[in-house]
Order: sequence, then C-alpha cells, then structure tokens
Amino acid sequence: MPHTLDGAMFIGAERRHGTGPAARSADPRTDRPLEPAYPAGGARDVADACERAARAAVRYRSTTPGERAAFLERIADRIEALGDALVDRAVTESGLPRGRVTGERDRTTGQLRLFADEVRAGEWAEVRVDPAPPLGRRTTGPDLRQRHLAVGPVAVFGASNFPLAFSVAGGDTAAALAAGCPVVVKGHQAHLGTSELVGSAVAGAVQDCGMPEGVFSLLFGAGGDLGQALVADPRIRAVGFTGSQAGGLALMRTAAARPVPIPVYAEMSSVNPVFLLPGALRERAEGLAEGFTGSLTLGAGQFCTNPGLVVASAGEGLDRFVASASAAVARSTAQTMLTSGIHRAYERAVDGLRAEAGVREIATGLPGEGENTATARLLTVGADDFLTNPGLQDEAFGAASTVVVCRDQEQVVQVARALRGQLTATVHHGEGDDPAAAELLPVLEDTAGRVLFDGWPTGVEVSHAMVHGGPFPATSDGRGTSVGTLAMRRFLRPVCYQNLPAGLLPPELSDHNPYGLPRRTDGVRQEGATA
Amino acid sequence: MPHTLDGAMFIGAERRHGTGPAARSADPRTDRPLEPAYPAGGARDVADACERAARAAVRYRSTTPGERAAFLERIADRIEALGDALVDRAVTESGLPRGRVTGERDRTTGQLRLFADEVRAGEWAEVRVDPAPPLGRRTTGPDLRQRHLAVGPVAVFGASNFPLAFSVAGGDTAAALAAGCPVVVKGHQAHLGTSELVGSAVAGAVQDCGMPEGVFSLLFGAGGDLGQALVADPRIRAVGFTGSQAGGLALMRTAAARPVPIPVYAEMSSVNPVFLLPGALRERAEGLAEGFTGSLTLGAGQFCTNPGLVVASAGEGLDRFVASASAAVARSTAQTMLTSGIHRAYERAVDGLRAEAGVREIATGLPGEGENTATARLLTVGADDFLTNPGLQDEAFGAASTVVVCRDQEQVVQVARALRGQLTATVHHGEGDDPAAAELLPVLEDTAGRVLFDGWPTGVEVSHAMVHGGPFPATSDGRGTSVGTLAMRRFLRPVCYQNLPAGLLPPELSDHNPYGLPRRTDGVRQEGATA
Repeated sequence: MPHTLDGAMFIGAERRHGTGPAARSADPRTDRPLEPAYPAGGARDVADACERAARAAVRYRSTTPGERAAFLERIADRIEALGDALVDRAVTESGLPRGRVTGERDRTTGQLRLFADEVRAGEWAEVRVDPAPPLGRRTTGPDLRQRHLAVGPVAVFGASNFPLAFSVAGGDTAAALAAGCPVVVKGHQAHLGTSELVGSAVAGAVQDCGMPEGVFSLLFGAGGDLGQALVADPRIRAVGFTGSQAGGLALMRTAAARPVPIPVYAEMSSVNPVFLLPGALRERAEGLAEGFTGSLTLGAGQFCTNPGLVVASAGEGLDRFVASASAAVARSTAQTMLTSGIHRAYERAVDGLRAEAGVREIATGLPGEGENTATARLLTVGADDFLTNPGLQDEAFGAASTVVVCRDQEQVVQVARALRGQLTATVHHGEGDDPAAAELLPVLEDTAGRVLFDGWPTGVEVSHAMVHGGPFPATSDGRGTSVGTLAMRRFLRPVCYQNLPAGLLPPELSDHNPYGLPRRTDGVRQEGATA
Repeated sequence: MPHTLDGAMFIGAERRHGTGPAARSADPRTDRPLEPAYPAGGARDVADACERAARAAVRYRSTTPGERAAFLERIADRIEALGDALVDRAVTESGLPRGRVTGERDRTTGQLRLFADEVRAGEWAEVRVDPAPPLGRRTTGPDLRQRHLAVGPVAVFGASNFPLAFSVAGGDTAAALAAGCPVVVKGHQAHLGTSELVGSAVAGAVQDCGMPEGVFSLLFGAGGDLGQALVADPRIRAVGFTGSQAGGLALMRTAAARPVPIPVYAEMSSVNPVFLLPGALRERAEGLAEGFTGSLTLGAGQFCTNPGLVVASAGEGLDRFVASASAAVARSTAQTMLTSGIHRAYERAVDGLRAEAGVREIATGLPGEGENTATARLLTVGADDFLTNPGLQDEAFGAASTVVVCRDQEQVVQVARALRGQLTATVHHGEGDDPAAAELLPVLEDTAGRVLFDGWPTGVEVSHAMVHGGPFPATSDGRGTSVGTLAMRRFLRPVCYQNLPAGLLPPELSDHNPYGLPRRTDGVRQEGATA
C-alpha cells in the first residue's frame, strides 16, 4: 500500500501533525514549494517522542542480535518497496540526478544490511569474561563479565546533502538501531517528503517485527528550536549529526550544558587537503587535473569529502596541473545545489575567499540555467599567505577549491602541520616521492580520519575498515566514525557484571552463550565460545 | 643507586626545580611538613614538558608492541627496585598502613605488567582490513585498512587516595603509555616525595629502554594553576584524572573551551548504592551488616567505591541490619585520613548530611588519637525525603553511609531510578528475590559502570573485564574505564588508510603482519593473520 504524504510526524506508532509554523520543502531547480505542508512539532512532541523512546529502551536493547538484524533488514526491504515514489520525491526535493538518488537509496539499504550482518557477528558486544578462580587464570578475585551495552535513546539529525544515506534511515540511525538504541530523528527541512516516506518504512518495520513502538520517532521543525529541545531532553543519551559547523557547535554547547552532559557525534566541516608530490606531478599532472576536477565538481561539490584544498610545491609540474585543472573547471557545467540557502552560502563563501590577501580566482565553470545553479571555482594562494590566514581553511561547501603553492617540500610539510582536523587527507605520489610521502604520513594520520593515496576523497565506502570521522573541527569527537560498522560503537558503553547469579546474567554473557558471540576469556579470544 | 629526593621536576630527561611557591607534603598523623620542598612549576615548564611530549609522540607510537611492553615491564621492575624507600615515604605521606601500601605497590606493578601483556596481544589496535577486489568479499571499492592509533600526549593527574596505583605510574599513565601516548603527569601535592620516587623509576626506564625522552614528564604545582595550564596546552590530546567533582568539572570546562576541545576522563564521585533485598535481609542481616561495615570503614572510607548509600524496604530484616551495622560502626576505630583537607571536608560533609530534613545519625565510630582521624558514621533517611532532596546523593568522601528506608520494593526501584550515575551498584539477594533483582538490573546497568551481586563494591580487580567508570557524574565520560585493560581505548582513535602503497603502510596493517596482531578481514576475525 503506497504511503500518501500527509505532513504528520511519527511519535512512536502515533501519527501526529505539529501545531507550529508550517514548512514546505522546495524544488531547488525552480524554488517552487512542494506539498504537503509540515507543521513544526513543539515541546510536547519532543517530550512524547523521548518518553516513548525511553520506555522502549530496555525492551529494545534486550532483543536478540537476530531479532535486531531482521528488523534492520525489514527496514531495508520497506525502503525498497517504496519504489519510484521515494526516488521521484528525493529527486524533486534535492535537485540531484536520478542516478545519484537510486545509487544513494541502494547505499542506504546496503548499509542497513551490513549493520544487520554486524549485529549478528557480535563483535560490537565486546564480551570479556574473567572467570573466578579456580576457573581461569587469576588466583584471586570475583567472576567478572563485561559487555558493551546500548546507551539509550539517540537523537539523529538528517543531513541536507544525503537525503537518504545520512537522513531518516541513514548511517546514524542504522548504527544506533544496530547498537540497540531507540532513535528520535529530526527530519531535514530540505527533504520533508523524502523523510516522511522513509519514516513510514521504518515505522512499518517496527510494526512488522513487533518492536516496541517507541524505538523510532520522526519529528519535523527548525533545528534551532525543535533540534535544541531534542538534545536538551534528559532522556536522550547521545546525538548523531551531519551538517554545518555552526549547527554542530550549537548542539555541542547544548549537550555540554545539560545537567548530565551527553556525547555529540557531529560531522561538521572539512576541506580534505590533497597533496600532489613532485614525482606524481612530473608523471601525470594532466591526469591528476582531470581526476581532481571530477572529484571537485561531483554532485555540485556537495560532499563532506570534497577536495577543497590542493597543496604542492611550485614548479613546472604544478603549473601543468593548474593549467589543466583550470581548463577542466572552465569547461565544467553548472549544477543545481540542494537548496537556495546552500547556494547563497556557497556564493558568499567564494566571495569571501576571493577577497582574502593573496587569493586569486583562476577558473570559473560555465554559467547555469534555472535557480540555484552553482559554477565551480578554482583559486590559488601562496603558502606564506595561507599559513598566516586561518580563514583560508574554512570550508566553502560546494565545488570550490584552493591551490596552495609552496616554495618547496619543507613548506608543504609546514602547511600540513598547520591544518585543522580533517575527514580525509590525500597524497598523490610518483617515482622518488616515497621519502616525502613518509614524512607527510605521520602528520596526516594525526590530522585526518582517513588517509588515502593516489585517489580522490569523494566516495566513502561503507565497510568495516572505513573511518568517516576525524579530529575537531572535522567532527566534534575524533573517536568516532559515522560510516562503516565501527559507527555502532558511538552508541555503546562498557558495563561490568561481578558475581552475577547465572539466572540473572544477560544471555550475551552467560556460560552457554546462546547467541554465539565472540568473547575474550581472561584476555584470550574465543569464537562463539560456550562456558 | 637509590634516588635522593631533591624536589625537582622531570621535564623529559631534564631535572628542573620549579620557580613558583614551594609546597611540602605532610605526615597526616602529625601534620608535620616533610622535606624536601617542591617549588611549583610554571607556564614555561608546562610548555616545555608538552613540547617534548609532542616531539616524542610519533617516535613513541611507532615503537613495536614488544618494545612498549618491555618499557612497561621495566617501569615495574624499577618501582620494585625502589624497595623500602618507596614504601616508607608513601606510608609517611599518606598515613595508610604499611600493608596497604605494599599491596598497592604490587597492584601498580602488576597493572603495568598486565598492560604489557595486553600491548603484545594487540587487541587494542583493532586492525580491520577490507581488501580491494578481486581479493576479499566486496565487488568494488578500494583497499581499506583501519587501526586504532595513539591520540598523542596525555595529561595525567595523580589522585590523593592511591599514591601509587592512581598516581605517577598508576592506571592512567600505564594505559596511556601502553596505547602509545607520551604522558605529562601532575603529581599530587599530598604525596610529592612518593611522586618523585616513582618519577625517577619511570625516567630511568625511559633511559634503559631507549625511549624518546619526552615520553614522560612529571610536574609539581597547584591543580588550579599548573593543572589548568596543562589541560589548556594545545599539544595535550586527552586528560586522565581521579579526584573531586569540583576538580573534574573544572578540567572538563577548560578542555571544552579550548580552540580544539579534547576528551577528559575524570573519575569524580560516586556513592555506590547497595540494595539489600528482602530475602537477603531475612537470611543474613547480621552477616550483611558485618560485610557492609568492613567495606565502609576500609582505608577510612577513602575509596571511590565506598558504599555511601544503602537502600532497602522497611521491615524486621532491615531493622536487624541497621542494629547490627550501628553496633559495628560504633565499635569501629578511627583512622587517619590522607590529608587535613580531606579530613575537614569529611567532617563538613557529614555535618551537612546531618542537617538535612529527615536525616538521623544512628551510629558514630570510636574517637581517634592524633591529627586527622575520622570516625565512621551511619545515618538513615526515609525514601520520601531522599527522593525530594538531591543533596542526599552527594558524596561524603570517607567512612559515612546513609541507609535509605523505603516503604516497599516499588519505592526501592523508584530510588534506583532517581540515582545519578555511579561507579558501582550492588545487590544482595536471597531466596525469593530473583524477580526484584531482575527488575532492578536494567535500572542499575543504566546507572553504573559495574553491577555486582552479593559482595561489596570496594576492591576493584585489575583485569580484562573490569569497568571502573560509569555515567556522569561518576565520571565525565561513561564510555571509559580507568581500571582494566579496556582503559587503553581512552587514548586511541581510529584511522583508516586507503590504497596505501605497501612500502608506506604501518607494520600493524601490512600484509605480512610482523607483530602478529589479530585482525578482522572483511569483518571476519583472524588470529595474528598474514596476507
């Protein structure tokens, strides 16, 4: 049965219209507002959603890994069952090409299924058993058993730039549900209809799988009001957010000022520096320029991992790169940005960069048609100016990048050391570059969550080894990742059980290990062990 | 060669006297000040120690697990080699009994050796490899390798109540060094000589093992000045602290206000509630009273896990418990507290509790001789008063405990739900108590880092499954533990390497896996695998 959009929130199993000011998403290609209207939720809606989440918390975290995995898979099935209705709405609301939206939909369902596998595999529980003597290795002491347990209700903020993969049933939601946490989502105002459709899929899966109804709620409203109220609610135990630095910092402040502070995992801003080493430039300056421009302009540059900074030593190789990249950027077609607000912010950010001392715009893409089209920009600046002006590290969200021209390789390292925390750092290397690359590597692994060689930072694989995170201000908390199976850890905490009677031990920790979870016994790893 | 105390700090390999106001530790039994004087370090000393730590960071984190393990073992050996000089000084500075101090010394060296084993076992690195197709399971995507990497220099604050096990070479230092992080310690003013002796052992081990000199520094000075400067230093990447709530909150504020915020792991306060269920009281009220009083008065109650709260339903069983516990407390001998400041704070806290509505003091221990002796106290309050007065949850650091008398088991659960975050929560159960215990368990695992049955919370085992942590305000960050091998994780962060050339891959991640670390390949666990 297809879901008809009606603008109501999901407060657990209840559909409820907000009573605040109504918002509508718009088609960014025309700025035409879209139906239906989504009246904003208020304090009572936030409190009700959080109360239902809190009531669901113990029952939900006590489901078996198999039950939780089946629930995640059911969400994926139901998202697929939305079919063209979902893709059409997401295309209209985001202005993204249809192929990108279907790809993102598949990424979203694939992500849910990967988390389902990970829940079943059970590594996330990190079970440790130190048996009491005479069992085990110790000669004294009690029976101690440790597991990682769901922290409780998690607030998730949908991101503008991934209306599916980082939104209502995106990475944060999937990770939190996988960890055993109820989720209260604030849908993004830019794709309200998409959010409602995905919300109907999750709510349907809750019902299909007999999960406690409070395990999922979806609220609509402005971030500054409803979002802040959500983070301040005492029942919320952690926050997942992808968005602007201003938005992330505001949530961090609210979370830190609570009577009981909670962790905020905000993925906020990154310029994703790309280092072009001399050998690479010598061998393939033109190829690098082509790859770079593709990564820069992909999706109108609206990726967290967009390469906003290129760093290299001056010379013939860099001149060739700059000439080719300028030509490629100048040939690039304008693309519709996600919202008129993002488009305005992009133009403002580029104007700001251009006005900084020493910055020169060297290429501009082709002009576009329709509303909110943005042209790509390439700028340059000397490293001496860059090193004295922290503002040049600010992200211009969109297809703009600055080439930082260094005197020599020593200054390249100096620039690397001066960088703020990043999601990614990229090195292109060629013959003779190994010593320079080896010198950069320890600097970059301190600076970024992901270090990549001879590729481009856009394209974030959903897998076990991925880290989509990084030191502040790339994220609020460099201990986390918002992509990949390690993302679950953000919503778990360790608990130790001492001398618990067998009948009261959580099944995860019991001698007969009914879920077959891996465990460490006296520090020694055992697969799906019993006793 | 025995170390002669000279009051100088350790700034890397350099011995340097501070130039600020001098402090002396005192023998708390007499308040007699002890030689030598320890002049406080200043801003330059903090900066120099942090700079040396930062310079040592990459070389130190690049040592092999075997090298780091040998370094930890060498520290343990050198602490033991200090012999009676260390024990004598610690006894004099702390007023703790000699047996307790030698036990704590052995706990400290045992802890270092356990971390050495854990470093070698390699679980902490959490290596994950997702090979690029056609290797591995995926059909598209790059080669991705993830490890956990040392965060960089860590500031450690020695605790007053464990002059060895939670001080210069205590749990935080051992965990940080094991993780690959240089450490800058602020020695506690209450045991300056003990700190200098242990500092000499660590500095000696640095030299013996050829570690970079900046891997360890030890500063002296007041927490409000030198300690705050240390946490504010941009080179410091994480903080370990055990102490008062006021101290921990001040460090949290400083860390959050930095241009780049850093994690603070502060273990601050806990009243460690003990729930006595009806069956247990019926069966063994007197035995429980004896065990309780032993745990309460152990070490003058100066343990983070001291049972400061007892919760039970009114009735004949509880009456028997209260009568026996009152008698035992009344018989208990006064003990010297660690410092005159701690003694004054204890008396003030007990006076404060006594003045609260509904609180009654029902037993006082025997008076003591000498300075700073504290008598144990037992108080009671009705649950109705307790539930309306959050101040009754404040920790009175020392041998004072309050019995919360509940109307019935429902009110017991209500009290459990009203509790702030705790390090531990204890349940004593007997026949017929399983349903009540099962109802309490999910509440307690949300509230505490460790849930224990039919024992007493004092005595924190150093092992793999221990959690000495818990939700705020027990600690600043419920994701961590400061005891047990999981403590290393606080000082590690995940980093992903994409398509790194084999020659540049960190050895931990390389195909031939020279350190034999366990890894997950495409999510599947493999022991010390190669390729």
